[in-house]
Amino acid sequence: MILLGRNFLRAGLLKPFGALRRVLIADEALKSLYAEKLAKEFQAEFLLTPNLKSRETAHDLTDALFKLGCGRDTLLIALGGGAALDLIGFAASIYMRGLPLIFIPTTLLAMVDAAIGGKTGIDTPHGKNLIGTIYEPKAIFADLDLLKTLPDKEWVNGFAEILKMGLIYDASIWKKPDILKAIRGKMAIVGKDPREQGLRRILNFGHTIGHALETVADYLLPHGACVALGCAVEAHLSMRLGFLKAKEFAEILDLYCRFPLRLPKSYTRAKLLSAMAHDKKSAQGEVRFVLIDRIGHAIPFEGAYCRKVDFSELESTLEWMEGVYS
Amino acid sequence: MILLGRNFLRAGLLKPFGALRRVLIADEALKSLYAEKLAKEFQAEFLLTPNLKSRETAHDLTDALFKLGCGRDTLLIALGGGAALDLIGFAASIYMRGLPLIFIPTTLLAMVDAAIGGKTGIDTPHGKNLIGTIYEPKAIFADLDLLKTLPDKEWVNGFAEILKMGLIYDASIWKKPDILKAIRGKMAIVGKDPREQGLRRILNFGHTIGHALETVADYLLPHGACVALGCAVEAHLSMRLGFLKAKEFAEILDLYCRFPLRLPKSYTRAKLLSAMAHDKKSAQGEVRFVLIDRIGHAIPFEGAYCRKVDFSELESTLEWMEGVYS
Repeated sequence: MILLGRNFLRAGLLKPFGALRRVLIADEALKSLYAEKLAKEFQAEFLLTPNLKSRETAHDLTDALFKLGCGRDTLLIALGGGAALDLIGFAASIYMRGLPLIFIPTTLLAMVDAAIGGKTGIDTPHGKNLIGTIYEPKAIFADLDLLKTLPDKEWVNGFAEILKMGLIYDASIWKKPDILKAIRGKMAIVGKDPREQGLRRILNFGHTIGHALETVADYLLPHGACVALGCAVEAHLSMRLGFLKAKEFAEILDLYCRFPLRLPKSYTRAKLLSAMAHDKKSAQGEVRFVLIDRIGHAIPFEGAYCRKVDFSELESTLEWMEGVYS
Repeated sequence: MILLGRNFLRAGLLKPFGALRRVLIADEALKSLYAEKLAKEFQAEFLLTPNLKSRETAHDLTDALFKLGCGRDTLLIALGGGAALDLIGFAASIYMRGLPLIFIPTTLLAMVDAAIGGKTGIDTPHGKNLIGTIYEPKAIFADLDLLKTLPDKEWVNGFAEILKMGLIYDASIWKKPDILKAIRGKMAIVGKDPREQGLRRILNFGHTIGHALETVADYLLPHGACVALGCAVEAHLSMRLGFLKAKEFAEILDLYCRFPLRLPKSYTRAKLLSAMAHDKKSAQGEVRFVLIDRIGHAIPFEGAYCRKVDFSELESTLEWMEGVYS
């Protein structure tokens, strides 16, 4: 269940979830901004969490729940951006084999992407989100009023995912970005393929390159910037392989040129390729890409929704990327 | 899918799972006994794992998979007893949000209990199995020939779970213990209630006391002995609360008297109660028990399949236990 609206976070929303003990979890930045007030409204205990998602913080967060004596009769309410929801969702999914959970996303990116579809994840030295679970929250409360305090760069992060949805799924979103349409699109896709056996893979468009760039940059670049750059590059690849018309690629590039995109200083092609080899879509050592054949449509490839791309095929696209974004 | 039989572990069994990379995981003791031979038969790489299930070993096992470069195209084959399957199952469930998995249980306990129903778990200083997931293997291969090398105490462990199934679900198993019937019983129960919202709770009969005793004994007592003692004590509680006839309790006690059961030296009532407070069935600070009203039938309690028991109700049963088993 997802609720989208403005200024609707009231205690009554929790009635359908029964008389459970409630623990609201958020990081330091959100504590005084929203979390303490919401914890009071929801009659919940407040628990502070770091906003870094790692094995260590997952360990610490589950330990904090043990110390509070939380049992399966505890409803966790996770307030935060994508990283916080990923971490708290993961902790909720492994604590006593799963506690009931509510997400309250506080960034545009989390509302249109991270909160939806049940993917939880933490980062390891081996790569981003390589440890995680598929675990659905009972409800998502997306209150647009929480975005009033959102910094500009966070708007870019969310905007990049909305545009991606336009490229792979619904051309009308590309023409006119729309939060509700992006949310509905993602829900429809994950509803058809919750465990990412096929269709759901299209959501990874822009992320094969994007995640590898994040790894190369040691996670110092914003996710949205990396995904936007990744979308431009993977659109180029779609064109190079003969699937996407040059005219549509030009339209795509025209929009992404307005983003201030740059490769990280630490970039080398060898590092990028090494990071891509750890991509979760890779199989038998081959890197696989989601590709588009027009704006608004990812190619099904007989239900695989991705295609292996040899290094020789990738090379000229990487050269193009290095030329444009260095 | 579960296959039960003798001497049937051949490469052809894996054909339905496709052309995946295969990694067989087992501990040191099983390495030379069965694992290396099976890895060869299945054309799988062999990976050694400790048989302790903890956050640290889960960390190490997932790291070993990263170091092998395993992607989602890897089929994990877990060979071992309950603890190993719990650990490997947990690692499989969180590695890249879930790898396909096959269980080959090597103990009677694992065949009739741990391998079935998708519960994975690791122990923490806060208690047993308090971190874990619900994650179903693609298949379970239960080869009775693997039990030829099973030590006597391991037969007791499995026997205790089979008897428990007789007490809660099928009186014919109590009269004449039967591996296949016990497996079918557990599969039927978890099939009806995979996420333990009701019926599945009956499998915890004997375990509220049993797990608490394991915690008090610092996990130095065998699981089966603790469960057997727990079943006797929770049958006593069922009688004390007026649900179970004294005659049937006497029949139950008569059988459990043949087990060499003793409370751990470290036992104190305070420690037991404290360990029970962390039980996963406990709610709002109350300890809840599965109870039986006859051999072969756990009481539904309006779909909850457990009932809170106040300390005053529990006290005389604990006194009885301390008198009989000290």
